[in-house]
Amino acid sequence: MKPGWNAGTDKFLLEALTEDIGTGDITTLSVIDEGRQAHGRYIAKEDGILCGMDIVERTYHLLNADVELTRHVGEGEPFCKGDVLAEVRGNAIALLSGERVGLNLLQHLSGIATQTRHAVDAVKGTGAVIADTRKMTPGLRVLEKYAVRVGGGSNHRFNLADGILIKDNHIVAAGGIERAVRAARLHAPHTLKVEVEVETDEQLEEALRAGADIIMLDNMTNEQMAAAVRKVNGRAVLEASGNMGQRDLLAVAQTGVNIISIGALTHSVKALDISLKFALS
Amino acid sequence: MKPGWNAGTDKFLLEALTEDIGTGDITTLSVIDEGRQAHGRYIAKEDGILCGMDIVERTYHLLNADVELTRHVGEGEPFCKGDVLAEVRGNAIALLSGERVGLNLLQHLSGIATQTRHAVDAVKGTGAVIADTRKMTPGLRVLEKYAVRVGGGSNHRFNLADGILIKDNHIVAAGGIERAVRAARLHAPHTLKVEVEVETDEQLEEALRAGADIIMLDNMTNEQMAAAVRKVNGRAVLEASGNMGQRDLLAVAQTGVNIISIGALTHSVKALDISLKFALS
Amino acid sequence: MKPGWNAGTDKFLLEALTEDIGTGDITTLSVIDEGRQAHGRYIAKEDGILCGMDIVERTYHLLNADVELTRHVGEGEPFCKGDVLAEVRGNAIALLSGERVGLNLLQHLSGIATQTRHAVDAVKGTGAVIADTRKMTPGLRVLEKYAVRVGGGSNHRFNLADGILIKDNHIVAAGGIERAVRAARLHAPHTLKVEVEVETDEQLEEALRAGADIIMLDNMTNEQMAAAVRKVNGRAVLEASGNMGQRDLLAVAQTGVNIISIGALTHSVKALDISLKFALS
Amino acid sequence: MKPGWNAGTDKFLLEALTEDIGTGDITTLSVIDEGRQAHGRYIAKEDGILCGMDIVERTYHLLNADVELTRHVGEGEPFCKGDVLAEVRGNAIALLSGERVGLNLLQHLSGIATQTRHAVDAVKGTGAVIADTRKMTPGLRVLEKYAVRVGGGSNHRFNLADGILIKDNHIVAAGGIERAVRAARLHAPHTLKVEVEVETDEQLEEALRAGADIIMLDNMTNEQMAAAVRKVNGRAVLEASGNMGQRDLLAVAQTGVNIISIGALTHSVKALDISLKFALS
Amino acid sequence: MKPGWNAGTDKFLLEALTEDIGTGDITTLSVIDEGRQAHGRYIAKEDGILCGMDIVERTYHLLNADVELTRHVGEGEPFCKGDVLAEVRGNAIALLSGERVGLNLLQHLSGIATQTRHAVDAVKGTGAVIADTRKMTPGLRVLEKYAVRVGGGSNHRFNLADGILIKDNHIVAAGGIERAVRAARLHAPHTLKVEVEVETDEQLEEALRAGADIIMLDNMTNEQMAAAVRKVNGRAVLEASGNMGQRDLLAVAQTGVNIISIGALTHSVKALDISLKFALS
Amino acid sequence: MKPGWNAGTDKFLLEALTEDIGTGDITTLSVIDEGRQAHGRYIAKEDGILCGMDIVERTYHLLNADVELTRHVGEGEPFCKGDVLAEVRGNAIALLSGERVGLNLLQHLSGIATQTRHAVDAVKGTGAVIADTRKMTPGLRVLEKYAVRVGGGSNHRFNLADGILIKDNHIVAAGGIERAVRAARLHAPHTLKVEVEVETDEQLEEALRAGADIIMLDNMTNEQMAAAVRKVNGRAVLEASGNMGQRDLLAVAQTGVNIISIGALTHSVKALDISLKFALS
Repeated sequence: MKPGWNAGTDKFLLEALTEDIGTGDITTLSVIDEGRQAHGRYIAKEDGILCGMDIVERTYHLLNADVELTRHVGEGEPFCKGDVLAEVRGNAIALLSGERVGLNLLQHLSGIATQTRHAVDAVKGTGAVIADTRKMTPGLRVLEKYAVRVGGGSNHRFNLADGILIKDNHIVAAGGIERAVRAARLHAPHTLKVEVEVETDEQLEEALRAGADIIMLDNMTNEQMAAAVRKVNGRAVLEASGNMGQRDLLAVAQTGVNIISIGALTHSVKALDISLKFALS
Repeated sequence: MKPGWNAGTDKFLLEALTEDIGTGDITTLSVIDEGRQAHGRYIAKEDGILCGMDIVERTYHLLNADVELTRHVGEGEPFCKGDVLAEVRGNAIALLSGERVGLNLLQHLSGIATQTRHAVDAVKGTGAVIADTRKMTPGLRVLEKYAVRVGGGSNHRFNLADGILIKDNHIVAAGGIERAVRAARLHAPHTLKVEVEVETDEQLEEALRAGADIIMLDNMTNEQMAAAVRKVNGRAVLEASGNMGQRDLLAVAQTGVNIISIGALTHSVKALDISLKFALS
Repeated sequence: MKPGWNAGTDKFLLEALTEDIGTGDITTLSVIDEGRQAHGRYIAKEDGILCGMDIVERTYHLLNADVELTRHVGEGEPFCKGDVLAEVRGNAIALLSGERVGLNLLQHLSGIATQTRHAVDAVKGTGAVIADTRKMTPGLRVLEKYAVRVGGGSNHRFNLADGILIKDNHIVAAGGIERAVRAARLHAPHTLKVEVEVETDEQLEEALRAGADIIMLDNMTNEQMAAAVRKVNGRAVLEASGNMGQRDLLAVAQTGVNIISIGALTHSVKALDISLKFALS
Repeated sequence: MKPGWNAGTDKFLLEALTEDIGTGDITTLSVIDEGRQAHGRYIAKEDGILCGMDIVERTYHLLNADVELTRHVGEGEPFCKGDVLAEVRGNAIALLSGERVGLNLLQHLSGIATQTRHAVDAVKGTGAVIADTRKMTPGLRVLEKYAVRVGGGSNHRFNLADGILIKDNHIVAAGGIERAVRAARLHAPHTLKVEVEVETDEQLEEALRAGADIIMLDNMTNEQMAAAVRKVNGRAVLEASGNMGQRDLLAVAQTGVNIISIGALTHSVKALDISLKFALS
Repeated sequence: MKPGWNAGTDKFLLEALTEDIGTGDITTLSVIDEGRQAHGRYIAKEDGILCGMDIVERTYHLLNADVELTRHVGEGEPFCKGDVLAEVRGNAIALLSGERVGLNLLQHLSGIATQTRHAVDAVKGTGAVIADTRKMTPGLRVLEKYAVRVGGGSNHRFNLADGILIKDNHIVAAGGIERAVRAARLHAPHTLKVEVEVETDEQLEEALRAGADIIMLDNMTNEQMAAAVRKVNGRAVLEASGNMGQRDLLAVAQTGVNIISIGALTHSVKALDISLKFALS
Repeated sequence: MKPGWNAGTDKFLLEALTEDIGTGDITTLSVIDEGRQAHGRYIAKEDGILCGMDIVERTYHLLNADVELTRHVGEGEPFCKGDVLAEVRGNAIALLSGERVGLNLLQHLSGIATQTRHAVDAVKGTGAVIADTRKMTPGLRVLEKYAVRVGGGSNHRFNLADGILIKDNHIVAAGGIERAVRAARLHAPHTLKVEVEVETDEQLEEALRAGADIIMLDNMTNEQMAAAVRKVNGRAVLEASGNMGQRDLLAVAQTGVNIISIGALTHSVKALDISLKFALS
């Protein structure tokens, strides 16, 4: 599922270009003739999953509508070190001035997609779904959520308005899980499911009684989670959460939980090493 | 050096809050009474260098002017796992709704400051300066550059407008290093130094002849860099560059280069693990 | 449930003030001395439910921080023709220049809240919930959704991203209801329920088989809806929809549907008649 | 007179699309293939005057430049229940995602144009002009003023900067009508006429003496207005005002006033019922 | 008449500060301690009329709410070379970083006010009014129009929407002055006067016949203007226009025209020389 | 060197058009038929250097993509009174509505370019470079800096972030020139040169000892500057500053200084007289 139309993406890219170019790429403008053409190749310096080439293309088009980008690897496809991922051709000043913004995003998003794919592959066959969290880089949520999907993961709620997640403080404030769930059902749109975070067996039972649609098992051992799966027995969706980036994902998945949500997919991203080599025409 | 006044930071934080809160924190608004007060503690889950507490405070103030934040660890100071970094007190709805934006930034910036401090410590005593690059997260450059400074590093040029860096393609387009340097001096403000990227000994000599103020040694071995240091003999500032995040920084510094610039400081950030635990009053 | 923090509201009010004041309230600036104080009373010219006094206050504070507003009727409370709803006191230029923006919003939102309260009262005791739709004035959705809640109604999904509603075209494109539901569950966040719009008994059965969480009964007679309620028997939430603004709401509610969504609550708003009478001090 | 170029309209439409689409039309993106084409027909469900089809077209073009809209009824033309007003053809995702924003505006603006035309027809032959007021929906003024013109009405001042209207408080503050008019002539651009609001015969005479260009007769009976027309005898333009939406407009016009301004044209709008029926290609 | 509330002014000043400060005032932040206080004096280096000290104050407050500005000369008052116009006191970093934006505006606006005052003084006693034009610096119109008023001049229409000025091309397009005036009266709000630009005696007569409220005499000799005044004899306001910045204004005024509009007041501004001397506390 | 890509320029022009057109060019929209075509010629009314025709073209394209502009004089080329500089052809409403914004910028920028060229010509053969300052019109810096380059001048630092200039207050605060220079080198990016402003011979020597890259000689006599040139003897770049707009530039240049920076180039601009004459087709 592509991100679809989004006025925010163009705005974001224009601001990113402005941030990086400032009042003008002085070096390039001083040295390169206006009409000069160039050609560049995106080359993988390590294996990974590609994500963000549409963003690179859009970035270049915002600078210069005539830049042409030819893909050799599709969005979400795997590639190997040394592969040529795409070629770009056009005005040399535009290509050089826009290089870094495009690369920064491509490396960041491909890093997320690659990390996600590893997690998805780790639980293959178990039926467990790998999901993201709200531990994302401010300003990049639409793109980072997209990269998770490209990597094969699933998106958790986008923000605080489109999902109900009742945590410990909400429970304390409401005076118990049942009251909190009731308050949420009363005030929130009926199109949203109600999720409750639980840390103990007692809370799990209370959440079930309250009719929670989804129950988040926070920082539980695999044994606790397996027991929860047996107890719930399909009456609610179960989500494993809490430093999942450092757990054996297959073992977690084999407890039978439906969803494993991993903050590290997006809060600790290793940029995938991709280079862009230019040749002037 | 603090970031100083910056209209962009408030705008960035407001957009980050809007991104995360959307049309309203439905769970919190449904469950927590309007007048309820709360209190939270920022607790380190691992050792590190603190960066971003001012940003957290500002984020909360944009939500609710009455939130009070008390620091126990200063910006740029080291802390240990288990330390209470700060306490926050105020309206419960504001504290819960703004929690994630503040934490995402605090963990990201502290991650950068901590990584930078490690690099700075690694070259201590050699005189080499650790610097950042333009390999940064789009939209966060002012904050990420600040985090590098907080970590003890130095900032390279902020964007393409406030530094001249002549790379291979500029050299090809201009017809040689000397011509490129001349063109840059002719067109750019006289307040900017001219930096040239070189990959070979011949290019190094040409850059010296052209009167480059700074010479970037790209992807050279330590032996090549040591030879360059001897040859240049103080006539230009020398900057080591190219996957420095994976090199033995002390060995690089001992070649005598003046500056080591490391993209990984900001393009591959591991969020520092900091939690925020609330108690309702 | 108040709208909570929303950076958009201030932006919206500043744009509304700019739209109405333009480059300056020439009449007032020409005629009224800078230091002059004034006092005004908001008086109901017809019965209704109050909504928007916080917005009026915020509008005035954006013009002049010293304006003081005293409420005599609370948000969401009923009032009668002739009641003094609130008093406002402060700089005469600010009071006169901001009068119209505040009144336009107060009358519009109170109009919505009043219309909603009438609908809510009409179905009192049946258990049916009155909900809004996306047939709203562009730019005012946060405020209009708030007015519906103030009137006692419930909000349907806020926008196309925080609710899944599968309509006829989606069904055709997907090749049937079951496939459409499956595609939605696969791609959308697991925190969202799946709603399907049906027009016939066959579609209703297909939606049930597909496991729809909510089924919208579009343009059905009361008899058809009563039959649907019996058939579904609690396995899905049922929503009555389609020109509900012109139906006998009690009769609709008595069919046993859970939700009645009414576009006319917000697409055809009669401004509630409220006047603001000033006296100069 | 078309609205002419207006940077604000695109901005408004982009914000309206963002408001309605949020972070993505999840249902449509999940269910509809990217390349799918569709075709839709705008069908009148009641009689009326068309207004806003250019806005609909622009809305679609902002989403997808290839959408094609074919008009069957022109802007400002009357149509009957059942008429096909226009057809739209293009990418199915764009057509479905942009449907509601376009329809909401089309129904709102056609509602205003239709209401205005009724008022204009009511006074046909009397020479009286039907005008709008500043009782408009915040954010929509340019479009609502345009709809009034499309309906055959005339626009009053656009905002507080491009017209002088001296009301009771201005008169009190200035110490009489003559002083207020003098102050306005002194400070305001000479390109603006001076209008004074009067409620009594004495005020009318004072306004005439002060040389007011336009005199607004506020909440007068038809007899009072007829007397005012005789007394003024062409020395000033006379405008009837005050709940004109509930008056017999022909009777008002027959008093001989030049202008009748009606707030209800825009503050209490009944959306005209227009549907959009899609067929997938 | 002060400019009144204007959301645009803060936005303009924030953008101006951002333009001048960029990503941070590196020199000041490097050298001045955060808590350091300073004190500055605005000193006139030549005689003039003061305009813009409120803007200077607001600029500083946007940087730092604690800066205090004490005026010694009022807005619109004359001062002599050597006079201390105002004093400013506060945080040294704020004072130094905001110095240039404030000074640039103060010198520019005082330049306009001073130039305007000279023109006003030149025609004193004749009854002629000095007015501005739309020949202004893009982005500064509200401020430049204000400076003209501070200098004692009068504002012409603010933009193309709040005044009707029929020029040669409009006349050609409409097929004559009478038709153009009629079209304008038909389409434009009745609150606006109609002005017609004429270059010949025939056009003047046609404009009179058409009932123009204002007639602009374009590039006429004083003799032609005096004749026009006699012919019009009070039936329309007469405005002298066309390179008036280079004419003997008294002689023009003595022809009896009502208004003299001068583009040079704002299109060719000599910054008034004002310095700001700081002392650190 | 063209300004290069700059998202800010389109934003600036859209705001300038909005400022001048407001809610619509009422005169033109009332009088000119929608499909009418027109043709215009830009004619010089005095000699000068052309600057800004690209901006004029872009302004028109933002209004109407079909407007065609044909240049007869190139950017930066000299022209004589009476020359036709360019022709413009297209929709009459667009041409008339956009006329003033384009002309205002063209006259302002050509005024700067012309003034700069005079200064450059005055020092021809001496090797001295004419530079601008930060005494610019808020909002127009990118364009005004460009006009200086078009006139043959050189740009000083763009803003406070991309150049280090240590002035008297910085020196006092730091406790001497050497300490100030050291602090700047420590905190600022190594890509920036350090400039120090000096007023006396002692300060000059201290700046030299501190290793300043550039020394600004503030308000010195030609004799003082000649002595400074001899003393510095190439060890630093020397910049003459302080009311240079009123000095004999050749004499200043002959002292041997490298750069002469002149605030008057941009703070006191005489608009170049260029007219635009239309003919309707």
